[in-house]
Amino acid sequence: MNISALLTSAGINVAVCAVLLSLYSILRKQPINSSVYFGRRLAQVSPRRNYNVCFQRFVPSPSWIVKAWETPEAEILAVGGLDAVVFLRIILFSFRIFSVAAFVGIFFVLPVNYHGKEMHHEHIPSESLEVFTIGNIKQGSKWLWVHCLALYIISFTACLLLYFEYNSIANMRLSHIRTSPPNPSHFSVLVRAIPWSPEELYSDSVKKFFKKYHGASYLGHQMVYQCGTVQKFLTETERLCKMLSSDKVRHRFDILQRTLCSSASDSFRVLSEEPESINGNPPSREREISSNATEIPAAFVFFKTRYAADIAAKVLLSANPMLWVTNYAPEPHDVYWSNLSIPFGQLWLRKITSLLAAVVFMFLFLIPVTFVQGLTQLDQLQYSLPFLKGILKQKYMNQLVTGYLPSVVLLLFLYTVPPTMMLLAVIEGSISRSGRKKSACRKVLYFTIWNVFFVNILSGSVLRLVDALSSPKEIPTQLARAVPAQATFFMTYVLTSGWASLSSELMQPMGLIWNWFKRAILRQKDDLVPYSFPYHTEIPKVLLFGFIGFIFSVLAPLILLLLLVYFFLAYLVYRNQILNVYITKYESGGLLWPTVHNTSIFSLVFMQVTALCVFGLKNSKSSVTFTIPLVACTILFNEYCRQRFYPIFKNTSAQILIEMDREDERNGRMEQIHRDLQMAYNRFTLPGQELHSQAQLSHPTQSEEEETPRIPEG
Amino acid sequence: MNISALLTSAGINVAVCAVLLSLYSILRKQPINSSVYFGRRLAQVSPRRNYNVCFQRFVPSPSWIVKAWETPEAEILAVGGLDAVVFLRIILFSFRIFSVAAFVGIFFVLPVNYHGKEMHHEHIPSESLEVFTIGNIKQGSKWLWVHCLALYIISFTACLLLYFEYNSIANMRLSHIRTSPPNPSHFSVLVRAIPWSPEELYSDSVKKFFKKYHGASYLGHQMVYQCGTVQKFLTETERLCKMLSSDKVRHRFDILQRTLCSSASDSFRVLSEEPESINGNPPSREREISSNATEIPAAFVFFKTRYAADIAAKVLLSANPMLWVTNYAPEPHDVYWSNLSIPFGQLWLRKITSLLAAVVFMFLFLIPVTFVQGLTQLDQLQYSLPFLKGILKQKYMNQLVTGYLPSVVLLLFLYTVPPTMMLLAVIEGSISRSGRKKSACRKVLYFTIWNVFFVNILSGSVLRLVDALSSPKEIPTQLARAVPAQATFFMTYVLTSGWASLSSELMQPMGLIWNWFKRAILRQKDDLVPYSFPYHTEIPKVLLFGFIGFIFSVLAPLILLLLLVYFFLAYLVYRNQILNVYITKYESGGLLWPTVHNTSIFSLVFMQVTALCVFGLKNSKSSVTFTIPLVACTILFNEYCRQRFYPIFKNTSAQILIEMDREDERNGRMEQIHRDLQMAYNRFTLPGQELHSQAQLSHPTQSEEEETPRIPEG
Repeated sequence: MNISALLTSAGINVAVCAVLLSLYSILRKQPINSSVYFGRRLAQVSPRRNYNVCFQRFVPSPSWIVKAWETPEAEILAVGGLDAVVFLRIILFSFRIFSVAAFVGIFFVLPVNYHGKEMHHEHIPSESLEVFTIGNIKQGSKWLWVHCLALYIISFTACLLLYFEYNSIANMRLSHIRTSPPNPSHFSVLVRAIPWSPEELYSDSVKKFFKKYHGASYLGHQMVYQCGTVQKFLTETERLCKMLSSDKVRHRFDILQRTLCSSASDSFRVLSEEPESINGNPPSREREISSNATEIPAAFVFFKTRYAADIAAKVLLSANPMLWVTNYAPEPHDVYWSNLSIPFGQLWLRKITSLLAAVVFMFLFLIPVTFVQGLTQLDQLQYSLPFLKGILKQKYMNQLVTGYLPSVVLLLFLYTVPPTMMLLAVIEGSISRSGRKKSACRKVLYFTIWNVFFVNILSGSVLRLVDALSSPKEIPTQLARAVPAQATFFMTYVLTSGWASLSSELMQPMGLIWNWFKRAILRQKDDLVPYSFPYHTEIPKVLLFGFIGFIFSVLAPLILLLLLVYFFLAYLVYRNQILNVYITKYESGGLLWPTVHNTSIFSLVFMQVTALCVFGLKNSKSSVTFTIPLVACTILFNEYCRQRFYPIFKNTSAQILIEMDREDERNGRMEQIHRDLQMAYNRFTLPGQELHSQAQLSHPTQSEEEETPRIPEG
Repeated sequence: MNISALLTSAGINVAVCAVLLSLYSILRKQPINSSVYFGRRLAQVSPRRNYNVCFQRFVPSPSWIVKAWETPEAEILAVGGLDAVVFLRIILFSFRIFSVAAFVGIFFVLPVNYHGKEMHHEHIPSESLEVFTIGNIKQGSKWLWVHCLALYIISFTACLLLYFEYNSIANMRLSHIRTSPPNPSHFSVLVRAIPWSPEELYSDSVKKFFKKYHGASYLGHQMVYQCGTVQKFLTETERLCKMLSSDKVRHRFDILQRTLCSSASDSFRVLSEEPESINGNPPSREREISSNATEIPAAFVFFKTRYAADIAAKVLLSANPMLWVTNYAPEPHDVYWSNLSIPFGQLWLRKITSLLAAVVFMFLFLIPVTFVQGLTQLDQLQYSLPFLKGILKQKYMNQLVTGYLPSVVLLLFLYTVPPTMMLLAVIEGSISRSGRKKSACRKVLYFTIWNVFFVNILSGSVLRLVDALSSPKEIPTQLARAVPAQATFFMTYVLTSGWASLSSELMQPMGLIWNWFKRAILRQKDDLVPYSFPYHTEIPKVLLFGFIGFIFSVLAPLILLLLLVYFFLAYLVYRNQILNVYITKYESGGLLWPTVHNTSIFSLVFMQVTALCVFGLKNSKSSVTFTIPLVACTILFNEYCRQRFYPIFKNTSAQILIEMDREDERNGRMEQIHRDLQMAYNRFTLPGQELHSQAQLSHPTQSEEEETPRIPEG
C-alpha cells in the first residue's frame, strides 16, 4: 500500500464523516428525532421545545460542536457523573500523549526512517508506506539512537501524564464521595448466605444476628424477595390500570400495591416503630406464609452511620466464611435484582465458568479473524477463489479490498462481542449493573486487544498462532518483523473503525431507524427509554486505539496523525453524547480508571518490548541496552501508582466517612436519612410513583432489560 | 541402578540411622548435653535434674520413642502451640495419603509395571529399578487403566484428607483464638507512615488523630523508638552491673532504666491517667528533645476492645493510602523491631527487590546443581575427568558415587539456602519474626521444589534448561521421559537427604559441638539460648518429600515404601524435638497451613499432568481422556477450599472477637487487660525482669539475633 492508497482511504472516510456530521446537524434539529438525540434532556425536562418549520432547520450547522467544546468540566460532572468525566479524561490523556508522540515521531523519527536506507526515493505520493516505518532502517544503523530517545521521551511523558491523571481522578473521587448527597448505598450493606433455620424466617435471623453483634449501629433491614408472582401480578395490574386510565381504578390499584409492598418492607417497620416488641411478638401465621413463599437468603441491612456500614461490609462477620457474607450495597437503581437470588455457594463456580467461556469465545473468534486476515493478503485470496481475479485486477477495487474491506468485516464481527460479554458478566453473578458493566468492559478489553491486535500481528490463522505460541523463542523475532509490517492494516483500521464508528455513534442509526419505524408503522409516540452510557463498548475501543498508537509511535509514526484526528473527534462526539443523549442512572465513581491506567502501562511496556525486539533484530546492541532500564522503570512506576492510588478506588477512607457522618449529625439531617432508607431498596415500588419523585433517575424494574434491545452502534 | 544397589544404599542409611539414634539415646542421658537436648524444658524448669553415674546412662534405650509416640496432641498444643500441631499434621497427612498410595501402588501398579513388557526377568535383586516403573509398560498397552484408576483413588483420597485436615485446622485455629488468654496483640494495631508535622511530635499527631476519629475505642499508644543510643547504653550498663553483681548497683540501674523507659512510654501514661489534661498541657521542653531524637513515624495504638483493633487494622484510615497505614500488631515477642524503622514508602520497593534477588539466587544455584547432575551421569564425568576412571571402575565405588554422593553434595549446597532466604525476608521488611519465617518458608519452598525437582528432571545443565523452556511443546514429552527415569535419583535422595537429615535433626550435631567447645575450651556454662522451631527449613523439606511422593506414586511406586519410613520417623523425631528442644516464642496460629494446602494441591495437579503426559507418550488415548476431568476437579476442589477456609486464616471473624470482648467485660477482666497493655510493647524492658515474670517466653532484645548463629542441621 502506498501513500496514495492511504489518501484514497482517508479521503473516503473524511467524506463519509463530513456527510454524516452534516446530516446529524440537520437531523438533530427535527423534532421527530428529539427522542433519539436528546434522550437525556427529554428525561429531565418534560415540556417539549417548539420547533418552527424554517429554512434553518435544513442547513447543516456546527453549533453542536461549539456547544460540546465549550461546556466546562463541571457541567459534564453534574450531567454525566464522575464516570463520564473519567471517560473524557481517557480521551484527553490520549490526545495529549499522542500530540507529544506525533511531534517527536514526525519531526525526528520519520526523517530518520525515510533516509534509513540508501535507495532511490520516488515521488512521495507513490512512495510505499513501508518507507516511513522502522523497517526501512538498515541493519546495525547508528541512527537507532533517535528511536531510543523517542521511546524515552514518549515513556516519560506518558508516565508523567498518567501520574497527574491518576492523582487528579483520585482527588475527584474523594471529593465526589465527600460532597455527594446522602446516598442510601452508603448506609447499607448487602448480606448474602443467611443461614437457614427451620424455626425462624430469614428476616428474623438477620434481625437477631445484627441486633446481637452490631446492636449499636444496626438500624433495620430489607429482605430481598424472589422476583416472580408478586412482581408479575403488579406489572399486569398496572398495565390494566393504564388501559382503563380511570382515577378511581388507579386509586384502588395504589391501595392494592401498598398492601402487597407492606409485607415486603414490614421487617423494617416493625423494628423501627416498636423496637421492644420484636422478641416477644411472634410473626403472625399469615405473614409467615406469604413471606416464606418468596424470601431468599439475602437482605439489605441498614446502619446508623456510613462508617458502621463500611465496617460491616469489610469484616468477616461469622466464623464460617460461607455464611453472612457482606458486600458494599450498590445504589438502589444499580442493584441487579435477579442476580441476588443466586445462592452464594454458586458464585465461585459461576465466576470460573464465565471466565472459561470468555476464553473459549476468544479462541472461537479466531475463525472470522482468519477470514479478515485473508483479505489483506490478496494474492492468497485470489489463489483460493480464482473467479475474483478479474474484479481484483482493477486498481481501485484492489485498494478498496485491501485497505477498507478487512476492517469493515472485522468491525461487523466485533459487534457480537459486547452483548456476549455482558451475558457472561450476568452469569458471573454481578450484584450491580455498574459491576456488570465493569466486568463486561474488562472482558471486552482483553478480547479486543487479544483479537484485534495480537492475532493480527502474530498470525492470521489458528494453526500459525499455535506454531507461534509453541516456539516462544521465535516470538520476539516474529514480533519485530510483523509489527512494522502490519502498520498499514492498523492505519486503515483507525480510518474505518475509528472515524466511522464515531460518526455512527453520533448518528445513532439504530435508534433513528427504530424511532422512525415506531412512528411510521406502529404509530406509537415518544416512549423511547434513554440509555445509560455504554462504557463497556466505548472504553475498550478508545483504549485499543491508545494501544495501537503506543505500539506504532516509534515504529511507524505516520499513524499518529490519524489517531490525533480520531481522538479530537472523539472528544467532541462523546461530550455531545453525554450532554444530550445518555442518562446517568448509576455511578461507579470513577472505578474504571485503574483498569485504564493498567492498560496504558501495559501498552507502554508492550511498546518498549516491541521496540526492544526490533532493535535486537537490527543488531543495535546499545539501543537494546538503553531500553531495558526503561522497561524496568515503567513497571516500577506502575507499582508505585498501585500503592499510592489504588486503595482509594478499592476502599473508602474511614476519615472521610466519619467526617460525613458527623456533618450530617451536626446538621440534624441524620433522622431524615434514616427515614428515607426505609423504602430505598424496595423492589416493588411502582414505576410511575418513582419517576415523579426522582426526575433524573429511571426506574429499576423498567430498566431491567435496558441493555438488551440496544445494538451497539459505536 | 538395580535393586541390590538400592539395598546397599538403604543398608548404609539404616545402619547410620540406627547408630545415630542409639547414640542420641545415650547422649541425651548425659547431664552435660541437657542444654542441647532439653532446651525447652530447661527454659521452663530452672532446677536441674540429678543424674547418677550408673550403667544405664550408657545403654541405648527406646524410651524417648515411646514418650514421643504416646504424648497426646493436647500436650503438644500446650507445649508447642498451634504451629507445632499443624506441622505434625502435615507429616500425619503425608503418612496417611502415602499409606493408601503405597497399598494401591505395590499391590496393583507394581505387578502391572513388572509384567508390562514381554521380557526375560532376572533374579529380582539384580533386576534394574527401571523394570518397576511405568517405563516398562509397552506402547499402547491396555493395562494403563490400572494407573489411571490408581490416579483417581490417590487423588480422591488426597482431596478428602486435605478437606478434613483444612476443616479441622480451621476449627483448631478458631478455638485457639477463642480460648487464648488475653493477648496484647489482639488489642493493638501497628500504625506506620505517621505524617510528619513541624509543629508537633509524632506521638502528639497519633494522639490527636485517633482521639479525633476513633475516640470511642482509642485507649492509648506506644511510640516506636529508634534502636540505637538508648538501647546501647542500657545493654552496656547491664553488662557492667552483671560484672559488679552487687545488689546496690543493681538497684541503681533499675532506677536508671525506669527513668529512661518512662520517656518512651509516657505518651501512654499521660493519656490513661489524665485524659482531660492532654490538650491543655504542652509537652515539656526536655521530653520533647529527648524523644525527638529517637522517635520514628511508627506506633502501637491500643484500643479498648479486640473488635475495635481489628477494624482499625482493616479499614483505610486516611484519604491518602500512603499515610496512617495500619497492620495487625504482632505479639510483643514476635515484633521484629529493627524493621519497624523502615520508611513505609520503601516497602514496596524492598518487596520487589527481595523477590528479584530470590529469583536470581534460584538461577545462580543451577551451577552446583549442574555439578550434582554430572555425578549421576558417571560416564560423562569420567570423560571430563579421566584420572577418576581407575577409582570408579571398582563396583562398590561406582554404586556409592552414583547412589549416594550426588544427594550429599546437593544437601550441603542446600544448607546455604535458608539463611539466604531469611536474609531476603528481613530485607523485605517483615514486621514480625513469624512473618519473616513465613516469608522465608515460602521462598525456601519454591526454591527447593524448583531446584531439587524441576531442574533435576528437566535437565541438569543451565543450557539444556534454557533449551527446554524455549520449546514448550517439547516439555510434556521431556517430562514424560525424564520423570520415570529419574526415579532412582529421588529414591537415593529420600534415603540420604530424608533419613539422614532426621537423625541429624535429632542429634543436633552443631549444637552439640558448640556446647562441648564452650564447656571445654571457653569454660562457660549453660547459657545456650533455646531456639524456636525452624519451620522455614523443615516445612519445605517435608513438603518436598510429599511432592516427590505424589509424582512417583503412580509412575514408580517403589519410592513410597522409603517415604513411609521417612514420614514415620519424622513423626517421632519432630514430636520429640517439639517436646524437648525448641521453645515457642511466638505463634502464627496455624497460618502456614494454607501454604501447605496449596503446595499439596500443586503436587496433586502436577502428578496428574505428568501421568497425563506419560499416558500420551504411551499412546493410551482413553487414559488421557479420563485423566483430564480429574485435573479440572482437583483445581475446582482447591478453589472451593479457598472460598470455604482461607478467609479464616486471613481475618478473624467479628463474631468471635465480639464474644471474647463481651466475655472479658462480663468477668471484669477488661481493666486488668488495659493496664497490662501499658508495658506490653515496651522495647526497653530488661531481659532479667521479664524472664522472671514470663517463664516460658524468652526476651525480645536478646533474641534479636536468635537465628543468626544457628546453622540448620536438619
